[in-house]
Amino acid sequence: MSVRFTVRAQDEASRARRGELVTTHGVVQTPAFMAVGTRATVTGLTPDDLRDVGAQVVLGNTYHLMLRPGPELFQRVGGIHKYMQWHGPVLTDSGGYQIFSLKEDRTVSEKGARFRAYTDQRMHMLSPERSIEVQTAIGSDIMMVLDVCIDSTSEEGAVREAMERTHRWALRSLAARTNPQQALFAIAQGGLNPELRKQSVQFLTQHPFDGFAIGGLAVGDSRQQREEITHLAAELLPADKPRYLMGVGTPPDLLHAVLAGVDMFDCVLPTHLGWQGTAFTSTGRVRITRAPNASCDEPLDAQCTCSTCAKFSRSYLHHLFKCSEPLGPRLLSLHNLHHYHALMAEVRSAIEAGTYASYARQKLEQIDRHEHNGRRLGRALP
Amino acid sequence: MSVRFTVRAQDEASRARRGELVTTHGVVQTPAFMAVGTRATVTGLTPDDLRDVGAQVVLGNTYHLMLRPGPELFQRVGGIHKYMQWHGPVLTDSGGYQIFSLKEDRTVSEKGARFRAYTDQRMHMLSPERSIEVQTAIGSDIMMVLDVCIDSTSEEGAVREAMERTHRWALRSLAARTNPQQALFAIAQGGLNPELRKQSVQFLTQHPFDGFAIGGLAVGDSRQQREEITHLAAELLPADKPRYLMGVGTPPDLLHAVLAGVDMFDCVLPTHLGWQGTAFTSTGRVRITRAPNASCDEPLDAQCTCSTCAKFSRSYLHHLFKCSEPLGPRLLSLHNLHHYHALMAEVRSAIEAGTYASYARQKLEQIDRHEHNGRRLGRALP
Repeated sequence: MSVRFTVRAQDEASRARRGELVTTHGVVQTPAFMAVGTRATVTGLTPDDLRDVGAQVVLGNTYHLMLRPGPELFQRVGGIHKYMQWHGPVLTDSGGYQIFSLKEDRTVSEKGARFRAYTDQRMHMLSPERSIEVQTAIGSDIMMVLDVCIDSTSEEGAVREAMERTHRWALRSLAARTNPQQALFAIAQGGLNPELRKQSVQFLTQHPFDGFAIGGLAVGDSRQQREEITHLAAELLPADKPRYLMGVGTPPDLLHAVLAGVDMFDCVLPTHLGWQGTAFTSTGRVRITRAPNASCDEPLDAQCTCSTCAKFSRSYLHHLFKCSEPLGPRLLSLHNLHHYHALMAEVRSAIEAGTYASYARQKLEQIDRHEHNGRRLGRALP
Repeated sequence: MSVRFTVRAQDEASRARRGELVTTHGVVQTPAFMAVGTRATVTGLTPDDLRDVGAQVVLGNTYHLMLRPGPELFQRVGGIHKYMQWHGPVLTDSGGYQIFSLKEDRTVSEKGARFRAYTDQRMHMLSPERSIEVQTAIGSDIMMVLDVCIDSTSEEGAVREAMERTHRWALRSLAARTNPQQALFAIAQGGLNPELRKQSVQFLTQHPFDGFAIGGLAVGDSRQQREEITHLAAELLPADKPRYLMGVGTPPDLLHAVLAGVDMFDCVLPTHLGWQGTAFTSTGRVRITRAPNASCDEPLDAQCTCSTCAKFSRSYLHHLFKCSEPLGPRLLSLHNLHHYHALMAEVRSAIEAGTYASYARQKLEQIDRHEHNGRRLGRALP
């Protein structure tokens, strides 16, 4: 058995659920946020740092890892866990999103995608079978099928075509799987078209995948469109399999998707924004380079229990960013990941207590109020 | 009393000595290497990391810290220790070296140096008195006098002039000191001229400084010149005060200077080279980006007990550098600082055992052999 998923509690006033996903490398408490470690590293952080912020799962990327360091390395050293020294669960994305982001030197056929690599300038092929082969070498606990990603706002014919190829590729991925220890999740596509989304979910759930993802969102769509499609798809997905909303998003996105019954998330925001100098806090986002922070001796977030907030003042973090010192991004990134993981821990507690719907409403109002204040106060807010 | 220095053991066959320097923020076991934390941060590392690598003292820079975050901040928050959360001893360099490295918009007079700041484009004055005032605000345990730095290879007249002004500035610094808790070290100058070096040491040691530094080396001189001047100066310095060789250097530089009776060192090499991808190991320097490391699953240094070597392979570190991932420099920098601190711990043990001279000879031969092999094998050596 690759993964075992159990729903432990169900919220009373929403579809939110509290689950446990048992993988080869440990148990994931859901709803779970997964830290993005594209190239077998979560930018600037060690596995010890990840454990400190409460990370449960690290997400690697098949496209990037097949180019560098390459599947042969993973075969030789015995997989990504040993390589990056993260001994908890790892999920690998298939590379579909990356392939379709390449603008030049890329041809996609029914067979797969041929593309020129940025690493060695040579042509490579990423097919459903090759993606599974590479993910098998990487040794992730959860593999994703190669899917056809297009802008969520594309016209219907294109969305349908991409969806249908995604389905054929999903079945080829299933047939290509060789290691029963590694779970395989399918990815529902269908853009922003409710009818296509429904077809996609109905097709994929007839096949023995270990979990289902909702793909193709947060690529040009509005928050409202995203929420509608997420609710529709999650409702149609089977209750006994984990549901994973890919690449989404902000804390409000997560709170809404949990209401819809989503169990797993990933997003680069906490790390990317951290490296750019923006922190998520319980009183809204903080741009650390803004002048008022230079004279603020309080932590980023007085409510936060992360190691950055336990020790360092905003004035020190401001100084580090002003000097382009790499400790600054490291400390902010750590804080942001802790913020996301602490939010998910709160989410899980609220579901267990059966109060998630009211918790989420309150939390969303709070975030909205802070963002509104932030906009209103403009530059006066640090 | 600002600092108290005690010589605990004296090597039999050399001038090497094992001491203890008691400062307001803790005891420094000497000979000691000090980690360079110019802008109140050792590039990319936290105070916890510094403790893990065995760091005893962190070195800040008055020139950089007066411009950013500025002395007013240190006054407000109560000093650098609290600000950067390093609660061990801190030494601040005076800014002399930085001032004299500025090529444009700088005028030096008997009063001090006027210069245009890179931070705010305004003119600032750094005089001996101002340097002490800023260092007092910073709250370092050991302050350095502002000195006049010129190329060690300058002609005699210029070297003499710089030395004489350094002496006058040293006395002005002494007179400007207000906090008896903060030690003040003088800096001997005199370039590569033995007679001037002698005069400088003789002049400065007549005054109640808490320690003496040998400045103006590692700026254009050869290793042999550096060693001769270090031996000459150290021999003339009083036995009951700590001796600090500024900005020097490689492990062989340190081993030689300890033979001469030097107690304290600082150098950017372990951190700078670490960020550039070069590691110090017990078998010579390793350029991690070299191709053979891509397939080497051994640690950087099998002899090393640092957290990088305990966990990560060369192939993983190579991958991180190839991907420009910031975890790479962080892990190499950590390793290099551990390497330097472990070397100094070995040095201290050898002096205690009365075997330093033979230990140093053996160690120097070993390093020389590895460097020779490295050159001979060329690109074949990872």
